[in-house]
Amino acid sequence: MADDGGSTGILRDELGVLPPGDVRQCLVALSDSSSLMRSLVNYRFENGGLGGHSFGNLFLSALEKVTGSFEKAVEEMGRILFIKGKVIPVTTHQVRLRMILNNRKILEGEKEIYLSQEIDQGYKSIYLEPMPEANPHALEEIKNADFIVLGPGGIHTSLIPNLLVDGVSDALLNSKAKKIFVVNLMNRKGQTTGFKVSHYLDKLNQFIGEDVFDTILVNDQQPSHELLDFYAEEGTLVENDLNDKRVVMAPLLGDLAEGAKKDLMRRNLIRHDPDKLATELMKIVGDL
Amino acid sequence: MADDGGSTGILRDELGVLPPGDVRQCLVALSDSSSLMRSLVNYRFENGGLGGHSFGNLFLSALEKVTGSFEKAVEEMGRILFIKGKVIPVTTHQVRLRMILNNRKILEGEKEIYLSQEIDQGYKSIYLEPMPEANPHALEEIKNADFIVLGPGGIHTSLIPNLLVDGVSDALLNSKAKKIFVVNLMNRKGQTTGFKVSHYLDKLNQFIGEDVFDTILVNDQQPSHELLDFYAEEGTLVENDLNDKRVVMAPLLGDLAEGAKKDLMRRNLIRHDPDKLATELMKIVGDL
Repeated sequence: MADDGGSTGILRDELGVLPPGDVRQCLVALSDSSSLMRSLVNYRFENGGLGGHSFGNLFLSALEKVTGSFEKAVEEMGRILFIKGKVIPVTTHQVRLRMILNNRKILEGEKEIYLSQEIDQGYKSIYLEPMPEANPHALEEIKNADFIVLGPGGIHTSLIPNLLVDGVSDALLNSKAKKIFVVNLMNRKGQTTGFKVSHYLDKLNQFIGEDVFDTILVNDQQPSHELLDFYAEEGTLVENDLNDKRVVMAPLLGDLAEGAKKDLMRRNLIRHDPDKLATELMKIVGDL
Repeated sequence: MADDGGSTGILRDELGVLPPGDVRQCLVALSDSSSLMRSLVNYRFENGGLGGHSFGNLFLSALEKVTGSFEKAVEEMGRILFIKGKVIPVTTHQVRLRMILNNRKILEGEKEIYLSQEIDQGYKSIYLEPMPEANPHALEEIKNADFIVLGPGGIHTSLIPNLLVDGVSDALLNSKAKKIFVVNLMNRKGQTTGFKVSHYLDKLNQFIGEDVFDTILVNDQQPSHELLDFYAEEGTLVENDLNDKRVVMAPLLGDLAEGAKKDLMRRNLIRHDPDKLATELMKIVGDL
């Protein structure tokens, strides 16, 4: 809910709506509707004043305008997309993510933080402004969950922002849910340069307040040398440095058709295989 | 399918899609979905690069891009909106409406023709460029229909353009359907100045090739003097000048809340009441 890049950032600025981009992706991921409908929601206009906007973002924004409520919009779109499960925004207030670096530079907004190459030099603060109230429905779900999966995702731009919303860390601490942390595959140079599993875990727990995780799922599959070389400018593979019974290692990499390499940005080249990840998670859920 | 104004015109120009605006209105009119869904489809964005676009137009355009076919897009959107009946574009080719006036001025596009104040001075030609093939599904439906209702609508910008598509007039002539012409309530100054019912009928029949109508439905309800005065700059009420058994006169005017006057454009002030019109049409269908 702190996203301010791309199509989402423009919609926030021009229409004053809440950021639709990440919610849209969650909805599509849970959708049981036709592949046509899912392609439609992810379709990006290419030209003119609409250029760069994904149709699903416009869909959520128009629904928010018509219903007068972002949460209602998400609910309606969930119905239209026949989603399994629920998508609940962590807050329904407009917020910006801000970071104050050790060198006193201030990074404004998720996009600027995402693009920064100086974060590994250390930062004094990361916070949301204004400090938002949590969506009570989100707190409720956290408290009543059987299992909570955190990650994978950008630690500063996707994971920590949720923990900065007032009440979320408390809800996590007070939830009896089993908690699983899915560690990222790759570090990002300038952001999490040289991070190992323990660094990711410490970072999260610093914002939660305690080490709450029951399982830490880590990939142990090596990408090809060729792919790692190609990716080297972006970052390196995350290695496990924990000798901890909670760590589960498994091969989680997605296959990538050779032809796709040219079309994708580097950061999309090494990613989780959704089926492998789901299978491992279901095993863990069975064991816990 | 010759519309080129407003949001529709921009989408045609920028995205190369077929004109969604009129089709959207037909779909909403036939929709059996929630009022929320109908409000959503008619919602117009107000600011920024999206300003002026109706969400339904973007919906149809994105669907056309994803499916690769305008007709398929209309069909899909009909499904999403739970429409009763069908909406079938008369052609699926890109066309522009053009008019050559008696003073040799050329009017380019439906919007320019709609806005012209010189059409009542006479014109040499009105045509579509390039001359489009009809959508065979549309011809099929015309041939197999039990009843065909033409009008109300702008004679040069809504009714005649359909008759200019290759094959449509022939299909009308060859159809055994009973044909009903719903005459407009008001003339438009500079376009149909001083037209009476016979002028509208002659105009249409000129493009169809024969007088094919079984019934001509004409309003006989007088708007208030105040409303007519207010409307005077736009045009006058259409009067019946035919002594013809096919003419059915009925009170068809919609009520208008006083408060609405300030918000609406003049041309929207005097209009058909959908329920009255439907009731009269059903009576005629029963009698024919």
